[in-house]
Amino acid sequence: MAGNSFGQIFRITTFGESHGQGVGVVVDGCPPGIEITAEEIQKELDRRKPGQSKITTPRKEADLIHILSGVFEGQTTGTPIAMIAYNQEFESDDYLNLKDLYRPSHADFTYEAKYGIRDWRGSGRASARETLARVAAGVLAKKYLKQRVNTEFISYVEQVGNIKAKTDFEKATLEQVESNIIRCPDQKTAEKMIELVEKIRSEGDSIGGIIRGMIKNVPAGLGEPVFDKLHADLGKAMLSINAVKGFEIGSGFEGSKLRGSQHNDELYIQNGRVRTKTNHAGGVVGGISNGETIYFRVAFKPVSTIKKQQKTISRKKQAVILEAAGRHDACVLPRAVPIVDAMAALVIMDHYLKHKAQNL
Amino acid sequence: MAGNSFGQIFRITTFGESHGQGVGVVVDGCPPGIEITAEEIQKELDRRKPGQSKITTPRKEADLIHILSGVFEGQTTGTPIAMIAYNQEFESDDYLNLKDLYRPSHADFTYEAKYGIRDWRGSGRASARETLARVAAGVLAKKYLKQRVNTEFISYVEQVGNIKAKTDFEKATLEQVESNIIRCPDQKTAEKMIELVEKIRSEGDSIGGIIRGMIKNVPAGLGEPVFDKLHADLGKAMLSINAVKGFEIGSGFEGSKLRGSQHNDELYIQNGRVRTKTNHAGGVVGGISNGETIYFRVAFKPVSTIKKQQKTISRKKQAVILEAAGRHDACVLPRAVPIVDAMAALVIMDHYLKHKAQNL
Amino acid sequence: MAGNSFGQIFRITTFGESHGQGVGVVVDGCPPGIEITAEEIQKELDRRKPGQSKITTPRKEADLIHILSGVFEGQTTGTPIAMIAYNQEFESDDYLNLKDLYRPSHADFTYEAKYGIRDWRGSGRASARETLARVAAGVLAKKYLKQRVNTEFISYVEQVGNIKAKTDFEKATLEQVESNIIRCPDQKTAEKMIELVEKIRSEGDSIGGIIRGMIKNVPAGLGEPVFDKLHADLGKAMLSINAVKGFEIGSGFEGSKLRGSQHNDELYIQNGRVRTKTNHAGGVVGGISNGETIYFRVAFKPVSTIKKQQKTISRKKQAVILEAAGRHDACVLPRAVPIVDAMAALVIMDHYLKHKAQNL
Amino acid sequence: MAGNSFGQIFRITTFGESHGQGVGVVVDGCPPGIEITAEEIQKELDRRKPGQSKITTPRKEADLIHILSGVFEGQTTGTPIAMIAYNQEFESDDYLNLKDLYRPSHADFTYEAKYGIRDWRGSGRASARETLARVAAGVLAKKYLKQRVNTEFISYVEQVGNIKAKTDFEKATLEQVESNIIRCPDQKTAEKMIELVEKIRSEGDSIGGIIRGMIKNVPAGLGEPVFDKLHADLGKAMLSINAVKGFEIGSGFEGSKLRGSQHNDELYIQNGRVRTKTNHAGGVVGGISNGETIYFRVAFKPVSTIKKQQKTISRKKQAVILEAAGRHDACVLPRAVPIVDAMAALVIMDHYLKHKAQNL
Repeated sequence: MAGNSFGQIFRITTFGESHGQGVGVVVDGCPPGIEITAEEIQKELDRRKPGQSKITTPRKEADLIHILSGVFEGQTTGTPIAMIAYNQEFESDDYLNLKDLYRPSHADFTYEAKYGIRDWRGSGRASARETLARVAAGVLAKKYLKQRVNTEFISYVEQVGNIKAKTDFEKATLEQVESNIIRCPDQKTAEKMIELVEKIRSEGDSIGGIIRGMIKNVPAGLGEPVFDKLHADLGKAMLSINAVKGFEIGSGFEGSKLRGSQHNDELYIQNGRVRTKTNHAGGVVGGISNGETIYFRVAFKPVSTIKKQQKTISRKKQAVILEAAGRHDACVLPRAVPIVDAMAALVIMDHYLKHKAQNL
Repeated sequence: MAGNSFGQIFRITTFGESHGQGVGVVVDGCPPGIEITAEEIQKELDRRKPGQSKITTPRKEADLIHILSGVFEGQTTGTPIAMIAYNQEFESDDYLNLKDLYRPSHADFTYEAKYGIRDWRGSGRASARETLARVAAGVLAKKYLKQRVNTEFISYVEQVGNIKAKTDFEKATLEQVESNIIRCPDQKTAEKMIELVEKIRSEGDSIGGIIRGMIKNVPAGLGEPVFDKLHADLGKAMLSINAVKGFEIGSGFEGSKLRGSQHNDELYIQNGRVRTKTNHAGGVVGGISNGETIYFRVAFKPVSTIKKQQKTISRKKQAVILEAAGRHDACVLPRAVPIVDAMAALVIMDHYLKHKAQNL
Repeated sequence: MAGNSFGQIFRITTFGESHGQGVGVVVDGCPPGIEITAEEIQKELDRRKPGQSKITTPRKEADLIHILSGVFEGQTTGTPIAMIAYNQEFESDDYLNLKDLYRPSHADFTYEAKYGIRDWRGSGRASARETLARVAAGVLAKKYLKQRVNTEFISYVEQVGNIKAKTDFEKATLEQVESNIIRCPDQKTAEKMIELVEKIRSEGDSIGGIIRGMIKNVPAGLGEPVFDKLHADLGKAMLSINAVKGFEIGSGFEGSKLRGSQHNDELYIQNGRVRTKTNHAGGVVGGISNGETIYFRVAFKPVSTIKKQQKTISRKKQAVILEAAGRHDACVLPRAVPIVDAMAALVIMDHYLKHKAQNL
Repeated sequence: MAGNSFGQIFRITTFGESHGQGVGVVVDGCPPGIEITAEEIQKELDRRKPGQSKITTPRKEADLIHILSGVFEGQTTGTPIAMIAYNQEFESDDYLNLKDLYRPSHADFTYEAKYGIRDWRGSGRASARETLARVAAGVLAKKYLKQRVNTEFISYVEQVGNIKAKTDFEKATLEQVESNIIRCPDQKTAEKMIELVEKIRSEGDSIGGIIRGMIKNVPAGLGEPVFDKLHADLGKAMLSINAVKGFEIGSGFEGSKLRGSQHNDELYIQNGRVRTKTNHAGGVVGGISNGETIYFRVAFKPVSTIKKQQKTISRKKQAVILEAAGRHDACVLPRAVPIVDAMAALVIMDHYLKHKAQNL
């Protein structure tokens, strides 16, 4: 209800602030018998952690994950799985200058408008540090789905600023994505993107971009019309990630320019299986997966923390000048790729279990 | 859980198929004391009903709404409000040809893949006729919010195919929107859009487009991070509407090309109130409303029903030719405007009550 | 959230007041493919309906059920099943005397304290007439469970006032229960109970009693610790029925007097299956079914409507005398038996599907 | 969904096993601005902890609570409050003998029947150690309610075996309850109860009993008919506590023997406020609080762990003899009193916020 849980059968609840004791998650409803270790989860967290390359924030956070419950003798037990990454010690003074002002396009003002109080140390609960909890939970979902139905999640950075990859997305592989620090499978474009991010970084500015999400081998039949349509829940999942401002599935916004005769996906039979010749739908029809690859695009705005001087206001409603100093990411997209994968996995997992409950 | 409910405190559950007994809704959690009549609800339903103009489907459905419970002596009582529009009689034979095949880009195949059975009369539960139930419920939300905090919902058709309105959206009025049958406040563009839709219609084809949604006077503080962010729930709400393939808020996909120094919304004080000079955020920061106008865009694909011959397959997995005959909308956008308004109202209402529960 | 829904995967939402348009239910999450007819549902409703015998209220209500959606060609389709029993016309004047006062032990005052408004015609939403919607939904659950795992629900009236049946409950059959109008399988005691109810009735008074619920053939493994324990949800279900003031499972209150060495149920193997020699647990251990018969007891207070003069107060907070006139049940228990069965079935069904989602 | 969360607006999720890393809770939806310290929470936990007196288990667990998130500068911030008590180290060998058998009336068999796997160290997730998380969360609820509406929670041990207190419950005070180690306000009876427990303990046996719960100063209007009635949720809350087998509110089971004319609570006006002369209802009418004291009784079976030899079976379905050795409580009731208080507080809190959302 209060918004810190996601999913219904496979349900995660995250907690923690960027500069409190730690950030964690409780996963309730996880099927028993999944073999899992902290190391496996750590591996995925390392894709998200700061300081992993020259283009990410130089903050060094180990983000070391601890499993507190729900796993016994290397297997999930069906009971709640709590996990936490304790925060490292820091100097609270680093953030003292942020205590009494509202940074532009940060959630400082809105948290105070809502709650009347906020933890002003490093954005508190609004920090993207919270997303490590999602990534940790996502590993469980991915593992289960891979074993059960061979589902795979391959997201990548498709666009940074105006630079756009030319990859045929259906052919992108995880190896390609991981082969460069911007996480774009089109290597040439990746180089240009990295160059751009370094330039932007040197200018103390930030830049947005687009991540393409892809999910292969989703069984037909997932999705719960009329409100919990599969793509509606995917959209919500993506829009809940920090800095996301847009989501489209299949033909998306461009498809709205087409005619029905162009857009309709012709059905045919391939090896006894129902297929579509084109996939404008993006793998979801009427809110239910049809077995084709699900693909979607997620728009990230440029992050709000920049090193340039900005006009803003204080909590006392006075005009002030903000001189941002802290370390930040000039472009969050490479680190957001595993978050997109994780949220997609959480959605598919929950819908898989829902479908299993009512139908299988 | 099974997907036919929306909202948590102000919670609606819809039911009914396009050619069953009727389509209806139960609204649970509606505050008591709202004055409401069937006539008020009917008025909004009439904006959605078929046959309202030359560019909508000529099907004549009265869509007459009946209030079955929860309203006493003209006021809501706090108990569940059930409403229904009974379906008119029809010839089941009209749809017999659809019984044994899967139409392209319709939910015929996916419903069967999911449930193993489907009501094949006029798309059954997957029909957009279901959205009348949402519109009916939305009227209650709109009325409450208007009285409590003066919130207003003004959506309109911004684009049809490649034709795009030039309206400064913040200035659009409901009167302008309702002044033409395409529901575009830019009258000149509206004429072109109507012309295009008529052309497409005469060709037996369909066309997609974009609706811009706008919500004025939303109090700062609504939204439940980190998952039930206000724009994440708006996104889900819109994506749950038939034929929607994309959603963006504020600067959206275009904003992803910008730099932080361009995109950040400078804060200032206006008459003692915290305001932003620009509104790239679209009225939501960190998932919480900031008091600025909320605006977003919703992409609709062209409807799948067309009068052109199409290749497809039968339930028995044979290749067949579909000769579509039924009446349909060449462009659903004018009729979708009140649905967008309704879904937006349901989201704001639920979040308003949540905020009231925990904070006010 | 607002309390008119029950269950999570198999989720029902009821609506309607005793003297509005009708009383109904929407069942969401019902598995597809269940064969069902209005007649089957009616049959169970007839066990609950008023006027069925000389000891129930002489009000004649047909309670004719209509299926509005979710059933096609005789089968559930997986989409929401809406059902309604329209109310018969009545003279609103009959209740005018109740408009401005609060009846003792009725919910008149509390509904007004909560909502500020109430439908005063025949108790409005607080009327036990609402329970017909539960019974209708329960039929679907019972049918599915019977077919899937042979689960059976056999409840009966065990006590009326101080008269208590001597039946060995495990041996009670549905035929025995239905063989007399009080629904007690111990025929001799049944006669005494009927005699008592007739006496109470003739005095214009009412009497409470106890229903024993029994559920046979529940598979081991149902229940969701630590909060949604099977018996906790059964308890909530029973306590949500009008006039219920107590619930106990297995050894219940009496068992609290025992020692562990007396109360522990010894485990043994019977035909390869894990069994217990005694069943003090009542079929649920640690909140999870163990495969033994589930049994519980439900305490009903005497109904509040009596024909005796009572002191009470008006809405204007004046002392007044209430001269109750309307027809009523002197003892609701015979009519409550199918409600207990239905609520038990809804609980087992929801837990069966939950278990299926996470584990099977 | 999977059962480890309780409440909807004020929603807690507990995690942890008795011999894993620790036991904890995440509280989501807690209003901001509540002043709270770990010490305040610890104080209440100490009422529940083992080893607190000669009649409780001699196990020494510090149960030291740590607040991990959601509290900043001594106040709740509206974001999730995570709390944990880390487990002390232990010798896993202590429990090795339990690994391969199912103890009578323990959840060993049912957890395996459900999940196919169980953490066999000290009952794992089924251990009552989990309830410390509930008590911790309950402190927040109690503090908020006390400040807002002066609500008070006073539960006590009313019966142990056949020994029953004679206290007029409405007059019991927290001081009386805390004045002896059995937590019974009737001092003479308390002595007898203690004597009995010591005797039972010396015999290696256990004994059940009854806790009376009492809630004072609950505002009229709380409760969400028709399913989430206030007493239905209280009942579920109590039945979810380990070893509870029964719940009754107001006149309960005894009341079922009465006539309406005896049971009805006459309404009158006292100082302008609506009151009832008797309180057979137990403070809840039609599922909604009426402003009178809420009281209820909770039946606890004797704990299953005893030091007597017992016949049982192994995981391999062989008959075996169980020689229980571990330390245990001969009577859990004194330690369960704060759990009953906590669960009651969680229910009232959630309903208070729900009422606030829809009505206030």
